Amino acid sequence: MKIGIVMGSDSDMPVVKKATDTLENLGISYEVRILSAHRTPDEAKAFAANAESNGFGVLIAAAGMAAHLAGALAANTVLPVIGIPCASAHFDGMDALLSTVQMPSGIPVATVAVDGGANAALLAAQILALSDKDISEKLKAKRIADREAVIKKDKALQEELK
Amino acid sequence: MKIGIVMGSDSDMPVVKKATDTLENLGISYEVRILSAHRTPDEAKAFAANAESNGFGVLIAAAGMAAHLAGALAANTVLPVIGIPCASAHFDGMDALLSTVQMPSGIPVATVAVDGGANAALLAAQILALSDKDISEKLKAKRIADREAVIKKDKALQEELK
Amino acid sequence: MKIGIVMGSDSDMPVVKKATDTLENLGISYEVRILSAHRTPDEAKAFAANAESNGFGVLIAAAGMAAHLAGALAANTVLPVIGIPCASAHFDGMDALLSTVQMPSGIPVATVAVDGGANAALLAAQILALSDKDISEKLKAKRIADREAVIKKDKALQEELK
Amino acid sequence: MKIGIVMGSDSDMPVVKKATDTLENLGISYEVRILSAHRTPDEAKAFAANAESNGFGVLIAAAGMAAHLAGALAANTVLPVIGIPCASAHFDGMDALLSTVQMPSGIPVATVAVDGGANAALLAAQILALSDKDISEKLKAKRIADREAVIKKDKALQEELK
Amino acid sequence: MKIGIVMGSDSDMPVVKKATDTLENLGISYEVRILSAHRTPDEAKAFAANAESNGFGVLIAAAGMAAHLAGALAANTVLPVIGIPCASAHFDGMDALLSTVQMPSGIPVATVAVDGGANAALLAAQILALSDKDISEKLKAKRIADREAVIKKDKALQEELK
Amino acid sequence: MKIGIVMGSDSDMPVVKKATDTLENLGISYEVRILSAHRTPDEAKAFAANAESNGFGVLIAAAGMAAHLAGALAANTVLPVIGIPCASAHFDGMDALLSTVQMPSGIPVATVAVDGGANAALLAAQILALSDKDISEKLKAKRIADREAVIKKDKALQEELK
Amino acid sequence: MKIGIVMGSDSDMPVVKKATDTLENLGISYEVRILSAHRTPDEAKAFAANAESNGFGVLIAAAGMAAHLAGALAANTVLPVIGIPCASAHFDGMDALLSTVQMPSGIPVATVAVDGGANAALLAAQILALSDKDISEKLKAKRIADREAVIKKDKALQEELK
Amino acid sequence: MKIGIVMGSDSDMPVVKKATDTLENLGISYEVRILSAHRTPDEAKAFAANAESNGFGVLIAAAGMAAHLAGALAANTVLPVIGIPCASAHFDGMDALLSTVQMPSGIPVATVAVDGGANAALLAAQILALSDKDISEKLKAKRIADREAVIKKDKALQEELK
Repeated sequence: MKIGIVMGSDSDMPVVKKATDTLENLGISYEVRILSAHRTPDEAKAFAANAESNGFGVLIAAAGMAAHLAGALAANTVLPVIGIPCASAHFDGMDALLSTVQMPSGIPVATVAVDGGANAALLAAQILALSDKDISEKLKAKRIADREAVIKKDKALQEELK
Repeated sequence: MKIGIVMGSDSDMPVVKKATDTLENLGISYEVRILSAHRTPDEAKAFAANAESNGFGVLIAAAGMAAHLAGALAANTVLPVIGIPCASAHFDGMDALLSTVQMPSGIPVATVAVDGGANAALLAAQILALSDKDISEKLKAKRIADREAVIKKDKALQEELK
Repeated sequence: MKIGIVMGSDSDMPVVKKATDTLENLGISYEVRILSAHRTPDEAKAFAANAESNGFGVLIAAAGMAAHLAGALAANTVLPVIGIPCASAHFDGMDALLSTVQMPSGIPVATVAVDGGANAALLAAQILALSDKDISEKLKAKRIADREAVIKKDKALQEELK
Repeated sequence: MKIGIVMGSDSDMPVVKKATDTLENLGISYEVRILSAHRTPDEAKAFAANAESNGFGVLIAAAGMAAHLAGALAANTVLPVIGIPCASAHFDGMDALLSTVQMPSGIPVATVAVDGGANAALLAAQILALSDKDISEKLKAKRIADREAVIKKDKALQEELK
Repeated sequence: MKIGIVMGSDSDMPVVKKATDTLENLGISYEVRILSAHRTPDEAKAFAANAESNGFGVLIAAAGMAAHLAGALAANTVLPVIGIPCASAHFDGMDALLSTVQMPSGIPVATVAVDGGANAALLAAQILALSDKDISEKLKAKRIADREAVIKKDKALQEELK
Repeated sequence: MKIGIVMGSDSDMPVVKKATDTLENLGISYEVRILSAHRTPDEAKAFAANAESNGFGVLIAAAGMAAHLAGALAANTVLPVIGIPCASAHFDGMDALLSTVQMPSGIPVATVAVDGGANAALLAAQILALSDKDISEKLKAKRIADREAVIKKDKALQEELK
Repeated sequence: MKIGIVMGSDSDMPVVKKATDTLENLGISYEVRILSAHRTPDEAKAFAANAESNGFGVLIAAAGMAAHLAGALAANTVLPVIGIPCASAHFDGMDALLSTVQMPSGIPVATVAVDGGANAALLAAQILALSDKDISEKLKAKRIADREAVIKKDKALQEELK
Repeated sequence: MKIGIVMGSDSDMPVVKKATDTLENLGISYEVRILSAHRTPDEAKAFAANAESNGFGVLIAAAGMAAHLAGALAANTVLPVIGIPCASAHFDGMDALLSTVQMPSGIPVATVAVDGGANAALLAAQILALSDKDISEKLKAKRIADREAVIKKDKALQEELK
């Protein structure tokens, strides 16, 4: 199963890039699409409605302002949909966060931090890992590497502070 | 032209009631629908896409939480769409307000106050009034009546305070 | 009918420019005025009170901070008034948003996103389009063009990602 | 000089009552008016414009939601205008606070706490006291009494805790 | 695979109940635990660290205030962790929402709406459904039922409005 | 009577400068002090307690963060105290605004907009103007000049737009 | 050393009660005072200035709205001062939280959660425990008891769910 | 007793630097560690659990976003834990503030201002000073020096304004 990443506008590319970098590091295949809940509602709907049969396992939606994209995808599939609220010119992403996370009962969106592209990808990977030992091992290795990176930084700091 | 009022859930009825009461006082015809951006996205889309040919002039959408309904309608019609952010269990409607008003460039939603059912109807009437003298006269009469009601209350207060 | 755009201060010009650019693209005539709800209340009132007889169909008000301009115009006309909350030095436009959208019952203001100049103009055009086939056609053409622009960007991205 | 208290709606009466009670305790004369910035803009303007010649020294405006009343009065007089942001159904008065306090340069509004009727009256009294020894003495006496009330409560508590 | 639901305090039971009801309707097995990130950090850690080997597929954490529970679980497993921010005495759950969703890069928490117990369960089910046809079918059936419920309410409303 | 302007830290000087410029334009005498509610509480208290006998008529306090300065002065005098909430590194001045305006009953602070140095000075002048015809005339002249400046800008814009 | 608990108003008693109950359970002596930063500034100052010589080790201040009390005490002592922001009629204690925690550099206030009376007492106890083995043991015993209470509730739940 | 300063990421170093500078000025020994509540939860736990026996008296934790670090330390020690909410890319530190201060009953965190590194160190010093005359004297001397610095700046300003 591959990951489908959808952004509402190409201005969200820097956030999406953090997701695709993460997926590439984990060797997970993905597609990236620009689909707008408001400008191309039919294309967005079709993408979500066909995602399962097209081999997608998880969808990630990155959008800002009144960020309806994740919810619009989620309304058309039972695949897990991860929403990344993107910060735009005002409100530091609070508008996108509330528009993404406060979904009504029945249609959940798995929301990550504002501009949290890397975590969206990791969450998608954690979901795929439930039925993919290889991804699971890679995620566990990444956790160990992340831990070691902190420990290394801490050691370097102790050296420096002496 | 008639007004189409859509609510995302029948729990929004008290807010919609303020709109329908106002439209009835102005003698403007309307239809009320329960259509969910997330549970019945196709029906919501079809309603908006066919609204113009079905004789609607303005659409009003009342929804709470991650209130995508107004935006979902607006994406499928060039009729003016008025959004009423509805307060739900948390955040006093701030989530619905930001989800409704912070629309990206290209697809405007005319947003009124949280739970502002009466004002949504009045705004719709003001729009229709541009090509309907009768409604225009009624709106002007209502303004005068509203003004007189304030003046009357003020006078009563002056009496009381003597 | 033409559109009347009022800004509370010339510092709001960049936001208004987005509105006038949009109206020019649609071939809709407009006037732009600098009128302050607080510094020139009489001029602001007179503008609104005479707007209908002066041939205006919709008013747009752009103002920041305790943004009373849209409300002050709306109190003096039954023409639809669109409010653009402008971000100023603090609060990212939240002060202007609440001052614009939270109008009391009786005097609606059709509020768009913070600094949403283009959407204010589009909303005004959508209102005029109810009785102007030509504008309606242009708006529909713009929707198609906007959609195609997204699709084109998406295609370019697919090429790039190959 | 007397105090002019204006409320935007009679629903603000409980807040205004705290102001009038305070003024009566201080023996300061006042008038209370119901005048709406939006429903009776001309009456509100006339009240402010004539306030000085009608013997008012300070104006107090109580209003909720997009609370323009204090600003609308202030735009039409150089008398000090005190704004009381009133809490309404949503946002705990934050909308009224920002609409009242965030006035643009040139037209100040002296803003007190949300629903702060008593403090608005005290502030008005402190202003009048600059040229009225009697009020000044009463305010100083009130401060002493307030202090003694706290001390008395503290003493009672000490007794109770023994 | 079963779902592990953890609540930080038994006061979160009403929210958890919405999750367990939903899982029971879908025939998904689950365990519910009371484990506190702060009062029983070792037990919480052990639960997460052993969750995979104990047969859990997805963890759900419900907590209020400085809601660290979901993050504390997520730090100790690569299973997907869903966080439900619970509203407590103040701030309507905004503290819990930010404490849950704003996770640093590396350790994602899939956050749902404040008090969103049902959606947390549905999201968990959607994740399990990727490798469980039966759950997938049930989710699709639920979507159809939800849609039909809205349509039925809409029809009833149309009858009523005639 | 002169105006006493107190700032909690010399970092607030740019805001205070807007106040002193305004007072100089109006020919009103003032003193500026650096006094901290927390670092020099005795000096701050003494300044307020002696302000009346030292010839001050109104006090202005500019402070940021947990802005207690205005309240600390107000607790020690019955002169009107105007608070300017100053924006600091975070929260855009919201912390200072709430710390300044939300005074408990008994001790009012007349709060102006965040960083509103000019309006604080104008408000002080409006207060002094109650017993000083000369200041009153200058304030009225300034209102006329402000109005004419807007009208002139509007005219220039009309020329430009032709 | 004993704990000094100061509340700005007797309306804060329910919050203070949680602190005194906690201290009594730990066998720590305390005094409770009603002292207002604004109504009895001299008494508040004297209390703080003399606290060390009067045998206090830690001060706790509970206040609402523009909660200056903790800061006012802290400005007059180098004893640790713990601030409890109290929720009042509006803003759920956010005003008190920001007024308490956002202290300028030089005068820290150790802030706990809104209405966090028990935690304020525990923090005070943890501070005293640094030089008091007995309190330290009691705190450790309380942690164990709290942990066991959670475990017991969890066990009861497991029984119930069977 | 020494102070243990823990940061969740080396990006928090500028805030920690303010704390270490302050401690060095007071001659208080400290250690600085990089330990992440999420990436190195075991190391963070071990650090806190052993802090008392390792000679620490107070712990300071600096972290941003969903800032769980202070709470995670506090859950594993009865030493006083001071939390510094660090501002990160969005929300100006409000997420970190609420994640740090809104601790549930039983596990207090002494929270200081956003990015308040210096005050965290001063608070730690004030706590140690309860059983260390030397630190107490230094803190009192610092208060005097801070006071004199303000007075000196005020005098310089008076010279400048003449």
